[in-house]
Amino acid sequence: DRPLTVIAGPCQLESADHALMIARAMQAACAEAGAQFIFKGSFDKANRTSLSGKRGLGIEAGLEVLATVRSELGVPVLTDIHSAEQCAQVAASVDVLQIPAFLCRQTDLLIAAGETGAAINVKKGQFLAPWDMANVVAKLEATGNTRLLLTERGVSFGYNTLVADMRSLPIMARSGYPVVMDATHSVQQPGGQGGSSGGQREFAPVMARAAVSLGIAAVFIETHEAPDTAPSDGPNMIPLAQMPELIASLMAFDRLAKADPLRV
Amino acid sequence: DRPLTVIAGPCQLESADHALMIARAMQAACAEAGAQFIFKGSFDKANRTSLSGKRGLGIEAGLEVLATVRSELGVPVLTDIHSAEQCAQVAASVDVLQIPAFLCRQTDLLIAAGETGAAINVKKGQFLAPWDMANVVAKLEATGNTRLLLTERGVSFGYNTLVADMRSLPIMARSGYPVVMDATHSVQQPGGQGGSSGGQREFAPVMARAAVSLGIAAVFIETHEAPDTAPSDGPNMIPLAQMPELIASLMAFDRLAKADPLRV
Amino acid sequence: DRPLTVIAGPCQLESADHALMIARAMQAACAEAGAQFIFKGSFDKANRTSLSGKRGLGIEAGLEVLATVRSELGVPVLTDIHSAEQCAQVAASVDVLQIPAFLCRQTDLLIAAGETGAAINVKKGQFLAPWDMANVVAKLEATGNTRLLLTERGVSFGYNTLVADMRSLPIMARSGYPVVMDATHSVQQPGGQGGSSGGQREFAPVMARAAVSLGIAAVFIETHEAPDTAPSDGPNMIPLAQMPELIASLMAFDRLAKADPLRV
Amino acid sequence: DRPLTVIAGPCQLESADHALMIARAMQAACAEAGAQFIFKGSFDKANRTSLSGKRGLGIEAGLEVLATVRSELGVPVLTDIHSAEQCAQVAASVDVLQIPAFLCRQTDLLIAAGETGAAINVKKGQFLAPWDMANVVAKLEATGNTRLLLTERGVSFGYNTLVADMRSLPIMARSGYPVVMDATHSVQQPGGQGGSSGGQREFAPVMARAAVSLGIAAVFIETHEAPDTAPSDGPNMIPLAQMPELIASLMAFDRLAKADPLRV
Repeated sequence: DRPLTVIAGPCQLESADHALMIARAMQAACAEAGAQFIFKGSFDKANRTSLSGKRGLGIEAGLEVLATVRSELGVPVLTDIHSAEQCAQVAASVDVLQIPAFLCRQTDLLIAAGETGAAINVKKGQFLAPWDMANVVAKLEATGNTRLLLTERGVSFGYNTLVADMRSLPIMARSGYPVVMDATHSVQQPGGQGGSSGGQREFAPVMARAAVSLGIAAVFIETHEAPDTAPSDGPNMIPLAQMPELIASLMAFDRLAKADPLRV
Repeated sequence: DRPLTVIAGPCQLESADHALMIARAMQAACAEAGAQFIFKGSFDKANRTSLSGKRGLGIEAGLEVLATVRSELGVPVLTDIHSAEQCAQVAASVDVLQIPAFLCRQTDLLIAAGETGAAINVKKGQFLAPWDMANVVAKLEATGNTRLLLTERGVSFGYNTLVADMRSLPIMARSGYPVVMDATHSVQQPGGQGGSSGGQREFAPVMARAAVSLGIAAVFIETHEAPDTAPSDGPNMIPLAQMPELIASLMAFDRLAKADPLRV
Repeated sequence: DRPLTVIAGPCQLESADHALMIARAMQAACAEAGAQFIFKGSFDKANRTSLSGKRGLGIEAGLEVLATVRSELGVPVLTDIHSAEQCAQVAASVDVLQIPAFLCRQTDLLIAAGETGAAINVKKGQFLAPWDMANVVAKLEATGNTRLLLTERGVSFGYNTLVADMRSLPIMARSGYPVVMDATHSVQQPGGQGGSSGGQREFAPVMARAAVSLGIAAVFIETHEAPDTAPSDGPNMIPLAQMPELIASLMAFDRLAKADPLRV
Repeated sequence: DRPLTVIAGPCQLESADHALMIARAMQAACAEAGAQFIFKGSFDKANRTSLSGKRGLGIEAGLEVLATVRSELGVPVLTDIHSAEQCAQVAASVDVLQIPAFLCRQTDLLIAAGETGAAINVKKGQFLAPWDMANVVAKLEATGNTRLLLTERGVSFGYNTLVADMRSLPIMARSGYPVVMDATHSVQQPGGQGGSSGGQREFAPVMARAAVSLGIAAVFIETHEAPDTAPSDGPNMIPLAQMPELIASLMAFDRLAKADPLRV
């Protein structure tokens, strides 16, 4: 099996310089550790807990930043989309379209995304069982697109809490598509700070390592040079300075896992 | 307090004749029992479990049916919307715009809906705590619209199961807005039949009665003359023939509850 | 159907005078409202969150208090048991033996309780589905004892939280045995205060009314003249002074529910 | 850190020959892989789903079997206890007393177990948050006993389902005591077969590997030469023939995890 892919970047795009700074650091850390790298950044946070939460650069400026990262550094880029109308425009500038978890059952969005021919990463809804992703996959495959990734990002567990069920990774892998662990969103505490979501950053490496040890294709990690002042998701992002060591550590587990695949 | 409002109709609109038949039966049952009535019908099921699930009449034909029900019977009508673009068009034909549960945090949709000035019924997401609806309300109020209703429709409880937490009704009522119990969706079993959702129709009257006894403003019930052959949500809809007796029963509990309000 | 039974009393027995004071007040409130009454009090809190939590009077002194309440006031009394060895001794002094929720699958305890011939109230475990109570019932019936009651007291919902699923009441009623709603424990927040359990007293009447409206046989409510200084369960007990009004209110819903039984 | 300990054996003891057969196989597999080994076997299944479920050899015969395994093979042995009265007798024959999950808050049982001076393995209740184990630990420490182990075996997640939250392992480790992952019970489906529990044996190695990668002290695995005909827990036990390969695989992850400890 191929080495782990690391999908990483800030929760939201802030500027070209900021994106390049993070992408460069991550590109170097991944190269050093032998990981593949995809840069991740959002141009719009369309479902912030509160209206006062910052939304982001917007689609025009955001796509420009992503295009800059792609052309300057030669790395593939991923971003999330929120409506069927956005799909074609976004697909022209990025390599991977991401379907947000809340929207993973919106048929029109899935079809429009699939029809672009871009790779599609679907986040499993917080309300969805892992076996129900088979229905999501079927919607996408109906467009002829089979460049799919399926991501675990935690499932509702009481109020304001998620739990990551490790069984979901091999269950989703039965689809034949690459499975991704979203290590930072699965430790979110949705709405946990009243007007914004809380998070337990300290457990993101726990989720990442446990999942990587199971032989997954990719890990998704949001990172920022100063999470506590980031415009969104600060409580669960990992400081950029800690990423090289984390990636190196995960790659050791990845090599072991890929050499000794679980048969579930 | 005013008597209970019954929001009822088929899961999806099938034809003008079908809608009129159900609306007439419900209008009569509600008048007989002293309940207020709002007709409910969807023109598009935008998040079916599977691609093969029927989507519905579409926006043009669906709105025409709703307009017919409104003009012929003189009853207010409600339908759900799925994108910001639809809001103005739909608001021209209906009295209440409904925000689907999966979409209850999509800021653009909330803003566009609010700006129409129509009444807005927001279904609480299956992933949301009742106190987090305060943030949803604030997004809508930012448009100046305060004609809001808040609906409980069950919260994720393990896989393929929802549970209706009765505490959520008084908690949401603290907002000052009318609270609605969705008696048929809260007994859904999402994805419970593999390619479609299951449901426990027999428990819908249980949910309705328990909630009405707490003094809520409205109950939401999907109904069909032949649920087992309906194009969607058959497992949880209540047969139309049972509705008059159910509404009459609920009104007795409503009168008692309104005369003896809980102070929470 | 017979009028609602109210099972009420302090979480733990404190003294004969204290028990008599509460029992007298409840006896009067129930007589006034037309409810049947069973006095409830624990002689030992065997599973306190922390070692420092008060355990209670102990079995000898506790049973004496219960016997005094029974003989002086002529009301049936209920207490909980924690080991097979206690059953015969306790059954000699009380009318109803109660199986604590954590212990509802302990076969020896169930058998020993059943063999006393006393009525047995089993609290459904926080980890148990309502349909699984059929197995608990079968263990008790194997002793020849069919004087059983089954109680809903909430089910685990994430961490430190319970939720009361109203469906569990009609599901357990399919057993043919009387079903009880524990209105005060179902709003407990287990371990919610670190070294002790929290609770949401304000929602206990919500749970009681919703359940009574479904036509249950009995409601279980812990009460104390000064909950905030009670030795245990203060956060969820209802002040004694509020009980007459609450019981009267519940009886109105009970009469309506018994006259209009749900068929599930 | 010391190499992983494997706590393994059949769910229930069947005979001395059977126990010796399994213990020998596990002893050899652990020695070969460099793991420490503790033999596990129950003399009584005190909380079977149904009355018809087999209970086991009983305390006298069971302790004799455990003593035989200990003396013949020189391996430490573990068994579970169900009442305070059993503790002293059992502690005379075994090395580790285990507190069942349902009983983890029963104060008298904890105290009696602690007072034996034996090592105590407490399974975290299916209804308990990981941070609440601090209160359980404090009850045991009050006896002066600090030879404690804390085990994750899954937490209630809807009905008839458990989920293993990987965060619970580092959270419990903050106590300073060794943490154990119960890989076979965390994939149980309690009551999932109506009259008995179901299970997902295929996911036990998933749970084991994910947890071992986090650097835990021990893994708990029930095993049987023919799980499908075992008297209990067949659906989740791992076939004995698969254990050598599984243990060897886990040890590779253990070495990596112990060389690269997570700091949470």
